[in-house]
Amino acid sequence: MEALDYHAEERRKAEFNLDEMKIVWAGSRRNYELSDRVARLVASDPVFRKDNRTMLTRKDLFKDTLRKAAHAWKRIIDLRLSEEEANMLRSYVDQPAFTDLHWGMFIPAIKGQGTSEQHEKWLPMAYKMQIIGCYAQTELGHGSNVQGLETTATFDPQTDEFDLHSPTLTSSKWWPGGLGKVSTHAVVYARLITGGQDHGVHGFIVQLRGLDDHLPLPGITVGDIGMKFGSGAYNSMDNGLLRFDHVRIPRNQMLMRVSQVTREGKFVQSDVPRQLVYGTMVYVRQTIVSDASCALARAVCIATRYSAVRRQFGSQNGGPEIQVIDYKTQQSRLFPLLASAYAFRFVGEWLKWLYTDVTQRLQANDFSTLPEAHACTAGLKSMTTSVTADAIEECRKLCGGHGYLSNSGLPELFAVYIPTCTYEGDNVVLLLQVARFLMKTVSQLGSGKKPVGTTAYMGRAEHLMQCRCEVEMAQDWLKPSTILEAFEARAVRMSIACAKSLGKFSNPEDGFAELSPDLVEVAIAHCQLIVVSKFLEKLQQDIPGKGVKRQLEILCNVYALHLLHKHLGDFVATGCITPNQGALANEQLRLLYAQVRPNAIALVDAFNYTDHYLGSILGCYDGNVYQKLYQEAWKDPLNDTVVPDGYLEYLRPILKQHIRTARL
Amino acid sequence: MEALDYHAEERRKAEFNLDEMKIVWAGSRRNYELSDRVARLVASDPVFRKDNRTMLTRKDLFKDTLRKAAHAWKRIIDLRLSEEEANMLRSYVDQPAFTDLHWGMFIPAIKGQGTSEQHEKWLPMAYKMQIIGCYAQTELGHGSNVQGLETTATFDPQTDEFDLHSPTLTSSKWWPGGLGKVSTHAVVYARLITGGQDHGVHGFIVQLRGLDDHLPLPGITVGDIGMKFGSGAYNSMDNGLLRFDHVRIPRNQMLMRVSQVTREGKFVQSDVPRQLVYGTMVYVRQTIVSDASCALARAVCIATRYSAVRRQFGSQNGGPEIQVIDYKTQQSRLFPLLASAYAFRFVGEWLKWLYTDVTQRLQANDFSTLPEAHACTAGLKSMTTSVTADAIEECRKLCGGHGYLSNSGLPELFAVYIPTCTYEGDNVVLLLQVARFLMKTVSQLGSGKKPVGTTAYMGRAEHLMQCRCEVEMAQDWLKPSTILEAFEARAVRMSIACAKSLGKFSNPEDGFAELSPDLVEVAIAHCQLIVVSKFLEKLQQDIPGKGVKRQLEILCNVYALHLLHKHLGDFVATGCITPNQGALANEQLRLLYAQVRPNAIALVDAFNYTDHYLGSILGCYDGNVYQKLYQEAWKDPLNDTVVPDGYLEYLRPILKQHIRTARL
Repeated sequence: MEALDYHAEERRKAEFNLDEMKIVWAGSRRNYELSDRVARLVASDPVFRKDNRTMLTRKDLFKDTLRKAAHAWKRIIDLRLSEEEANMLRSYVDQPAFTDLHWGMFIPAIKGQGTSEQHEKWLPMAYKMQIIGCYAQTELGHGSNVQGLETTATFDPQTDEFDLHSPTLTSSKWWPGGLGKVSTHAVVYARLITGGQDHGVHGFIVQLRGLDDHLPLPGITVGDIGMKFGSGAYNSMDNGLLRFDHVRIPRNQMLMRVSQVTREGKFVQSDVPRQLVYGTMVYVRQTIVSDASCALARAVCIATRYSAVRRQFGSQNGGPEIQVIDYKTQQSRLFPLLASAYAFRFVGEWLKWLYTDVTQRLQANDFSTLPEAHACTAGLKSMTTSVTADAIEECRKLCGGHGYLSNSGLPELFAVYIPTCTYEGDNVVLLLQVARFLMKTVSQLGSGKKPVGTTAYMGRAEHLMQCRCEVEMAQDWLKPSTILEAFEARAVRMSIACAKSLGKFSNPEDGFAELSPDLVEVAIAHCQLIVVSKFLEKLQQDIPGKGVKRQLEILCNVYALHLLHKHLGDFVATGCITPNQGALANEQLRLLYAQVRPNAIALVDAFNYTDHYLGSILGCYDGNVYQKLYQEAWKDPLNDTVVPDGYLEYLRPILKQHIRTARL
Repeated sequence: MEALDYHAEERRKAEFNLDEMKIVWAGSRRNYELSDRVARLVASDPVFRKDNRTMLTRKDLFKDTLRKAAHAWKRIIDLRLSEEEANMLRSYVDQPAFTDLHWGMFIPAIKGQGTSEQHEKWLPMAYKMQIIGCYAQTELGHGSNVQGLETTATFDPQTDEFDLHSPTLTSSKWWPGGLGKVSTHAVVYARLITGGQDHGVHGFIVQLRGLDDHLPLPGITVGDIGMKFGSGAYNSMDNGLLRFDHVRIPRNQMLMRVSQVTREGKFVQSDVPRQLVYGTMVYVRQTIVSDASCALARAVCIATRYSAVRRQFGSQNGGPEIQVIDYKTQQSRLFPLLASAYAFRFVGEWLKWLYTDVTQRLQANDFSTLPEAHACTAGLKSMTTSVTADAIEECRKLCGGHGYLSNSGLPELFAVYIPTCTYEGDNVVLLLQVARFLMKTVSQLGSGKKPVGTTAYMGRAEHLMQCRCEVEMAQDWLKPSTILEAFEARAVRMSIACAKSLGKFSNPEDGFAELSPDLVEVAIAHCQLIVVSKFLEKLQQDIPGKGVKRQLEILCNVYALHLLHKHLGDFVATGCITPNQGALANEQLRLLYAQVRPNAIALVDAFNYTDHYLGSILGCYDGNVYQKLYQEAWKDPLNDTVVPDGYLEYLRPILKQHIRTARL
């Protein structure tokens, strides 16, 4: 018997080889096979079920997280998984947990900022999880401004110790994941004070809880900060608060790779280049971009599949109604997001390469590309996460009323995703950093210093300031060079216009503050250009299968032209294109949507998500949406009894007109 | 002792009389005093506390809803509240409940669609809540396309009854609030079938549950549809599912004001004009616009107050850091939303007038303004709710990391608000209706039929197609006539451009489908014009106090110019303004932000929200944010014990390296 598949006909329409596209999406055959195997491993394990997650109380949800983390650890050990496989497994478990911080922040912080003696002492315990650590940086009063942190670590030369202290309420550590209930240790960021002098913020390894009884050590106040957005979602994580009342740690628990405090209390900077920190930031932000494409792809997969199942209006002679995916309003909202998922995937791949490149250069003491690489990753982190957060909600809206049900999967995906816009750099703060870099680049244009990497186009500013877009017909917009030049011209013209406006201020910092909303727009234009250009570069690479290549070309054009339409004001006001060329781009966009349409289901199948990982009835592979919704409804606790709890106390007195005398 | 007020200095900065502004916001002194009294009544009553709501399980939350509803009913009776006061009280309780549907949909449906005999029979019981009703329209398979509903009501002349039946899975009623666990009755929408003929969808009063035991009646399957977006939020509501297995009701339970079925089974249409239905839609959507301004104001109040408390970066010589509300990036995101709250408030007021006007005309059999009034309310419902939904999330982002905490109030406000974009007309479907009306208006321009009401400007199309914006300096953008003409010109030019494109299609419906994304943009341009023009009209009215008037002028300009900047492509591409005029508008906008800044706190104080209603630590009146966050954290259930539940089973085995042998 053939398995039920409501999408079978849609799947037959695809004009490309699905397996080939899966490999392109995964980056390589190896990646595809690896992730496919690990995803199935998780999906088939009953301990990892998550369909009841939004119904659990905070306590039960948290206990479930501990259970899943322990089970995952056991599987990792039993199956002797590699580090890469273990990371993959944790990500497919798809439930924020203290382990994310232990492996993703605590260990890397020690590796990056610790000396080799510190590595030898702490890393083996951490790798075996004999200790569990978190990353205690953010405070109640300080997030973005790390240099403004208030926690102090005062060196006491008499005892050779640091005294960690929380001098104010706002200095309480606040938000660190894994801190609230789990971590035995933390890397704590605090102001280093020696001999009465403040040496700024440094990292310290601090034990928080006893290894035998898990009780907070003397002087330490620690707890959970409370419920967060949504049900399920990040409530599985014990984001915590932490206060120190003169807690003492040995001197050798300051992370001393870059700076040291001597036995006498002298503050010393080592010759390790400080730029190394930026290397780590490039790494972390690159993974965030890659995660953005995953989250966006998940939302798009759900909305696309459901849009093919859902029918509304337009029945002719009693026939079926129209699939909502066939409406142009639906396509014009959905397909650009589908294209964005692919676009972010490819720019994420390129960022991986960039990180390798930067690392190699750092090892050779070449810091020349670092500022550009740093600006570029900061900008892409900001842009891709903001777009993804909005896109998840847009996908929910594209699912109509049923998208509002928890079991559509979209509410929880939204709730769990949105903090990405704030952590590892607030998205607006990051864009301003990018803008600052761009303004500096513009100011140096005449100096002979050639812009590198993603700002290389600024070296052609003279041409780009006066070039004219040559589009005369809609199809002219399909030419890669035409698209690229329009985006380059827009970015450079906006940059230079802003730089000119800045020049009118006598104090550059006042100007920067005053024009910051415009500068944010400049940074976005630059970032969009990067994504477009990396997508175009990807198309130049060796792509297996003509069908696959053709689809990616279509998606690339959708991505670029929808941005052009959305930011039409930028393009027209800077004279990069004429209003008529803008209208032609819009016309071409509609034609492209028609070309995406038959391939839409296959394009989301290519993400190769299991139903477990998707966690959505509306997005389930077989499309049997209505039956599953109906069956699932009965599992709600409110349906445990026919007559609801509270009927006798609160409903019956109303209905029976006993309310006047009732004591409620 | 003076009460603590961190905002005291901000409040002193205000350049207008707060009490005067409160009355302007409330609409009248009477409205202000009434709502102030009711809001305090609710806020001071411990039964109505809601600060622990997001921590309750679904069952406990639902029971809490029943309790609050019963208590509210008791207070309404005890205090002999008027209908207006009772509605206000329910809205300040601020927790979605079955009573919303009973009073807001069930009773109005009977009133609007029932005969006077039906009124006499059902309304007294409903007013006393001897029966509790809901509005069962939407089905699993049909929402927007009401005419596609599948539930049948087949007349049986032998017994003089209707046989209600759910012929398919997708015909299951799905979503109606109050249906799942509470309602004893429902107005059910079903296809009327008499003598084998389908007469389309009509309303029927159906009893669902026994009045003594609350058990579903024979043939009725009813239950809750399960968890929805977020914690707390709409999970307090028993949105339900309902299936009929040949359930019989007497013939006189069909709502027969507009159409009747005779004893013989003949289908008869009465001479009551069908347009009356539109009158009700105008009413309901007008309340939605008014609710939008309330929800938006709430979010803006929270974000504004917190932005004045929060400081980050820019400390000079150890002084305090900069309040984030002083950053232009923050102002450029926040102040347009503040202006929108006021703009929506005033357009909502005007819609109330419009509804009265329409009602009076209907009574005089004047249907001439109805299509325009209908299009206008549909458009404003769509536009204001979409903007508000996005704005709540934007306000959350403006609160940085702490906005992600449940007790910021913003996550729940978002979760509870967003369904408004879907119910009472999906927002995109509504905009297409508006666009259809606009295209019709354009097509009749030459015919001598003069456009009325909010489309009157189209009568000046000839002028608006060729007028030139005369702005030469930034301050020229402060002239009301300049702003108005720019928005009128943009709307008319986009409409006419779209009408021309439509003309190229041989089949108009194909054209409409193909160009629908553009048509949506045309409708938005038209709706924005309405809001701008009603704000400008408001400024012509008698506003008490020069300071108040001045502030409202500033907000009106902020509202208009931020839209102009956001949709610069529309304005420039249609030649309504030049790129340079666009830049001048942007310059003026920055100057306006500086004028809003000192008044920001007072402008949100004018909403007169109690801390109870706001439900936000970040937005509390006294601004004592950090201390409250810290105290509140300890109330989370996870902090009930120092060592978390699950430690022994799941954490200790990891730490003690017992995981290999553990059975988890």
